[in-house]
Amino acid sequence: MSTISDTRPLDRLADFPAIRDGWAYLDTAATAQKPIAVIDAIARGYDTTYATVHRGVYQRSADMTLAFEAGRKRVARFLNADETEVVFVRGATEAINLVAQCWAQEQLKPGDRILLSQLEHHSNIVPWQMAAEKTGAAIDVVPLTPDHRIDLDAMAAMITPAHKLVALGHVSNVLGSVLDAKRATEIAHSVGAKILLDGCQAVPRLPVDVAEIGCDFYVFSGHKLYGPTGIGVLWGRAELLAAMPPYQGGGSMIDRVTFAKTTYAPPPGRFEAGTPHIVGVLGLHAAIDYVDAIGLEAIHTHETELVAQTRAALRGINSVTLYGPEDAAGIVSFSIQGVHPHDIGTILDEGHVAIRAGHHCAQPLMDSLGIPATARASFGVYNGPQDIEALVRGIERVTRIFG
Amino acid sequence: MSTISDTRPLDRLADFPAIRDGWAYLDTAATAQKPIAVIDAIARGYDTTYATVHRGVYQRSADMTLAFEAGRKRVARFLNADETEVVFVRGATEAINLVAQCWAQEQLKPGDRILLSQLEHHSNIVPWQMAAEKTGAAIDVVPLTPDHRIDLDAMAAMITPAHKLVALGHVSNVLGSVLDAKRATEIAHSVGAKILLDGCQAVPRLPVDVAEIGCDFYVFSGHKLYGPTGIGVLWGRAELLAAMPPYQGGGSMIDRVTFAKTTYAPPPGRFEAGTPHIVGVLGLHAAIDYVDAIGLEAIHTHETELVAQTRAALRGINSVTLYGPEDAAGIVSFSIQGVHPHDIGTILDEGHVAIRAGHHCAQPLMDSLGIPATARASFGVYNGPQDIEALVRGIERVTRIFG
Repeated sequence: MSTISDTRPLDRLADFPAIRDGWAYLDTAATAQKPIAVIDAIARGYDTTYATVHRGVYQRSADMTLAFEAGRKRVARFLNADETEVVFVRGATEAINLVAQCWAQEQLKPGDRILLSQLEHHSNIVPWQMAAEKTGAAIDVVPLTPDHRIDLDAMAAMITPAHKLVALGHVSNVLGSVLDAKRATEIAHSVGAKILLDGCQAVPRLPVDVAEIGCDFYVFSGHKLYGPTGIGVLWGRAELLAAMPPYQGGGSMIDRVTFAKTTYAPPPGRFEAGTPHIVGVLGLHAAIDYVDAIGLEAIHTHETELVAQTRAALRGINSVTLYGPEDAAGIVSFSIQGVHPHDIGTILDEGHVAIRAGHHCAQPLMDSLGIPATARASFGVYNGPQDIEALVRGIERVTRIFG
Repeated sequence: MSTISDTRPLDRLADFPAIRDGWAYLDTAATAQKPIAVIDAIARGYDTTYATVHRGVYQRSADMTLAFEAGRKRVARFLNADETEVVFVRGATEAINLVAQCWAQEQLKPGDRILLSQLEHHSNIVPWQMAAEKTGAAIDVVPLTPDHRIDLDAMAAMITPAHKLVALGHVSNVLGSVLDAKRATEIAHSVGAKILLDGCQAVPRLPVDVAEIGCDFYVFSGHKLYGPTGIGVLWGRAELLAAMPPYQGGGSMIDRVTFAKTTYAPPPGRFEAGTPHIVGVLGLHAAIDYVDAIGLEAIHTHETELVAQTRAALRGINSVTLYGPEDAAGIVSFSIQGVHPHDIGTILDEGHVAIRAGHHCAQPLMDSLGIPATARASFGVYNGPQDIEALVRGIERVTRIFG
């Protein structure tokens, strides 16, 4: 195993009680494990500090409101955005649906077009199909380069003024391909289209600055960023959010309700009906503090190195096919000739290696690769060379069993 | 203070680390504090058992999927329903919006009518206004009886076959008025209307059996039931859910995705796009176990007694006006002549008594009562006579300050 470095640059395993000794958790692209700092923030949120937000006239509720809104400020700083542009949602899926419902369904009309890519997650396809069906808009698909990136040259060639919206994954959840988000944004804006970026796999893996990128909407899920389940973020440009109608009706999103007429609050409240996931926001705050303390540059370097080591090691096994680009961010998809990915996953699990096998909610990508599924190893701050060694041992066992 | 019993029937204060010594927390209708059992279930969910659900090929994920689906079964048993009829959402607000979007917007047409009541929470008004606006349906409002219940005789007199949907609060969040849910359902069904019940204030306060009630949709929020934030339940009759189109697009809710055509999963998955609030479901499971172990009958008796004691004590203070019926479930709204409810709340807070003051997201009810706001004390399993004593002492102080 001389190809695999013995250094473990981040050495964060001790922060993660969920990863028991010797468990190679390589499914961080599905969901990240939680550091103690996040679990503690959540427990404290429900424990001695718990109260509702935005409404209580007592001190504990005022304190919790400050803590909740501090979470919004933290997200804004994380993305280099303004806090009034940060909308809390259940996750990236809901964020995209919100834009599909409140922006696309309002703005699009027959003849308009939406531009996606071949590698999108279902959550960045189906909401647009639903919006297209309701508005009469059509969907076009940017192809991939031979090394499985979104082909921005092809995008530049195919985009037209009929395209009103572009929605792309910043980092592919299957392949780890990193989009040149700034160039994609420039191409979208060159025809006057808005652009939404799905940042689920990007925010845990590389620095993201929405002002620098120049995009219009950016979405991510908390649980993939080492944070709690049930919380996510929609960031949108202030002027776009301000022009959007409300999302769900209920408490907090209103200005004044009568049976005759209801008026609505300004963003972000307009999009946050009902009691929010209060403790989810506190946990997300702690998670952002956690990754920022390590540094996204350091995390990116760490995971890029793990990907390089994994690809180098797997390339040495004849029956393995690798997908995605060499410089993928933290994710490696592969297949083994004659073995179904689910069988790879099951056998690896026997050796205490957790990967994901399947279509990864990206069936159109699978179709374009000509396969029904891949096996996928994805990394987080807690992974090190020992996990790659365990993965490679497991794959060698798979090839022996099926060989 | 001889009118207030010295017994504390439930004596559950020790289960709640958030309620520090001598704090009279009387804002449970806004959100319930969390018992240790729930906080522990949440921490354990993020700690040594954490994994994604429905997808992993490794054991930890299979175990978490079982735990997640056990939560769904537990909710079903709690409501006396089938687990395939239990949809997990962010909270009651989202549940109502889901029905407004996927049922009302699909089913209603110009000429159709929706029947609400004068005491509804904004979350059970605004979604129907939005659906009415999109479909051309109209909204009618059932008035209240003199003691502030939904007037079912009036409802029976005013309902017509044009009414396709009735949506009512099972227990008023402002007044504690308990609806005769079975009779309301019979009246709705007598003209062929469907009925949705907002159970936010009911499920923590009295036994609920949707099969016995016979209703069509029932919704509640986890955080008001001593559970986590960011999780709630939509229960719907199987045949209604089966006929409804998808809600949000994304992972898990699909059967097969291509750019040409996407097909959808059956309920409840069809309505649960994206990674769910996994740990929220585990916490909700623990919360239901907690209240069921005490028994909803016992909780109801306890809170009814606290309400009776509070009303008796406040009735002795000349400047106090009480709202709602005598047999209200766990909630007492009141005002003090010449004192704004927010000032009541602030002064009570100085005496370590937490109440809510405001319109309680029920402005149409406030309009009908002819007041802008009330002060509201609401009880939970942790409250006892000592809290009522603290409340009364505080109110006496308010009347001295403003007297």
